[in-house]
Amino acid sequence: MKRNTKVSTAVIRRLPRYYRQLSELQEAGTERISSSALGKSMGLTASQIRQDLFCFGEFGQQGYGYKVDSLKEEIGEILGISRGHTLIVLGAGNLGRAIIQNFRFSSNGFDLLAAFDVNPALVGSRLAGVPVYHTSELERFIAGHSVDVGLLTVPIAAAQEMGDRLTSAGVKGIWNFTNYEIACADPEVVVESVHFSDSLLTLSYMISQREEQEENS
Amino acid sequence: MKRNTKVSTAVIRRLPRYYRQLSELQEAGTERISSSALGKSMGLTASQIRQDLFCFGEFGQQGYGYKVDSLKEEIGEILGISRGHTLIVLGAGNLGRAIIQNFRFSSNGFDLLAAFDVNPALVGSRLAGVPVYHTSELERFIAGHSVDVGLLTVPIAAAQEMGDRLTSAGVKGIWNFTNYEIACADPEVVVESVHFSDSLLTLSYMISQREEQEENS
Repeated sequence: MKRNTKVSTAVIRRLPRYYRQLSELQEAGTERISSSALGKSMGLTASQIRQDLFCFGEFGQQGYGYKVDSLKEEIGEILGISRGHTLIVLGAGNLGRAIIQNFRFSSNGFDLLAAFDVNPALVGSRLAGVPVYHTSELERFIAGHSVDVGLLTVPIAAAQEMGDRLTSAGVKGIWNFTNYEIACADPEVVVESVHFSDSLLTLSYMISQREEQEENS
Repeated sequence: MKRNTKVSTAVIRRLPRYYRQLSELQEAGTERISSSALGKSMGLTASQIRQDLFCFGEFGQQGYGYKVDSLKEEIGEILGISRGHTLIVLGAGNLGRAIIQNFRFSSNGFDLLAAFDVNPALVGSRLAGVPVYHTSELERFIAGHSVDVGLLTVPIAAAQEMGDRLTSAGVKGIWNFTNYEIACADPEVVVESVHFSDSLLTLSYMISQREEQEENS
């Protein structure tokens, strides 16, 4: 597969959305889709779709649209879904448990190996089949297993320290739910943060815009 | 405050990040910051910062940088934080409870009024002081209170139906954690979705890129 070397962050951020959309189309039994129909379902123009996918090589055929199955598979490849990545969860509080019990790691190509917490009531138990170890076991576990990603749902006060420990232990990425902007000592470690407040404030902005329009009309 | 009418989604998405960054600077006691220093802390260039903020009027003074307090306040105004928005939570499972108990709604300008669930063990109780009602009470509650936003953490099978009920009942926005792409009948209702899988797949992509570089080097 030919790929252009420089792909913008905006395009990269849209790839998972394409993957999600194509998965839904596949489940609905759709075999082919035009760039305009795919765009419409995602709030994008046909030309944006063509440009985005062109960054990663030649998909689809002029006038025939895209084959849903193979486009989904190709995008999955680009996203690394078939690479067999592994993950551990740090922090098995409400949020950690919600994610362990409900998030479909395997659909995203991840194997959830273990969870870590300091709560004696949880250590030694299993959550959705996943063993919970004491946080003091973290380095030993990582040394003995191939761990690609550490998911952080620890309290904000412990966020940086746990991020540092994951980095020192050699993970490739940190999936950060702590709402703390983790400073990573190693530039090779990728930090991806889910900031709930950024999302709510975007919603707040959109609502406020509509309110202002109504007030001024 | 002068505002350009057409602001790109990318700029809007960065506003909450500015607000978060400025809050942290304020807590650290920083009074002034240059566009280059602010940019560096956010992974943006000084010129991007100036362009972004210019969309919303004139902030800062050439050569003096930005006053942290007043820039934070201005951005907060733009985001609608002082508008006194209200919110209810639909679904008080692990994820709903994690958000109710840990998310700082008031820091984001939201007042959390109530939660709704069908679980008899939860109905009638309080979570972090927030009353939990049966989902059958939803319409009556919204009719009696001013509810701006409904937060959805219901199971995916109930997502569209609950989205429809919120829309019919007259909310202005839906904060959607169901991982289901809700189709909204009313174009005036804003749907903002938090898709965990989009975030994890972006991380997967970044890691896979590094792995490929190592394999090819």
